[in-house]
Amino acid sequence: MNMNWKFPYELDHIGVACKSIDETKKLYMAMGFDEPAIEEVKTEGVKVGFMQLGPEVEPGKGVSRIELLEPLNDNSPIAKFLTKRGPGIHHICLRVQDIHKAIESIKTTEVQMIDEKPKPGAHNCLVAFIHPKSTGGVLIELSQPQN
Amino acid sequence: MNMNWKFPYELDHIGVACKSIDETKKLYMAMGFDEPAIEEVKTEGVKVGFMQLGPEVEPGKGVSRIELLEPLNDNSPIAKFLTKRGPGIHHICLRVQDIHKAIESIKTTEVQMIDEKPKPGAHNCLVAFIHPKSTGGVLIELSQPQN
Repeated sequence: MNMNWKFPYELDHIGVACKSIDETKKLYMAMGFDEPAIEEVKTEGVKVGFMQLGPEVEPGKGVSRIELLEPLNDNSPIAKFLTKRGPGIHHICLRVQDIHKAIESIKTTEVQMIDEKPKPGAHNCLVAFIHPKSTGGVLIELSQPQN
Repeated sequence: MNMNWKFPYELDHIGVACKSIDETKKLYMAMGFDEPAIEEVKTEGVKVGFMQLGPEVEPGKGVSRIELLEPLNDNSPIAKFLTKRGPGIHHICLRVQDIHKAIESIKTTEVQMIDEKPKPGAHNCLVAFIHPKSTGGVLIELSQPQN
């Protein structure tokens, strides 16, 4: 990998599929997490709630979060995941400095991208998924913040 | 929660169950992760390999990592997980400043501990698991570093 960061990836979030954010957030708030800010991402058929996990690495450099994911309809990938696997961790999202460079670099290896081009994600980020068959069963989302 | 940190939890690691660390590490190294340092935790029946994810929050304050977990024998909980679910994310580990306080605080809520007392874990940490039934299906390990 030819990237500028010593560590090419930082944890952006851990995505947790649940049937109800309203119910699940109570458990995390009981453990001491702040109340998540909720938004709907209608293009993905999900409602999401983010809870911060640990402090900022450097001011403005982004934080790690737990993302609760609730399906908005039965066609949502999260609805299918819940039916097949039940509630729990759905994916992890790794923050990269330059998603185009990251994808080009990964495409030269045996690791297989689901998205060979980045697409718009939540919070005005560019995102692309890596195939879990080539990461030991972990669905990995790459995300580049845009200003 | 009555804890000193603004954020009571930091991500210590994401535990990924795999059949072979030697095979799985190649995929992560192809993505740009450093080669993991491998150790055996015979009491848990696992071989583990840690790969750093992002920089230190503050010098000496600990880092986030991906932990590859390979069973050493068929009785290992990781062997059972692989049979039931296949390779993938097994648990997440959240670092706390005072695990005794964290457990006492959680025990006053509806969230259920598996371990009501901390036990020795890898890297000279004290650890305790929270029941996934009370975290929306996520197996959460709490870990307090000891000096």
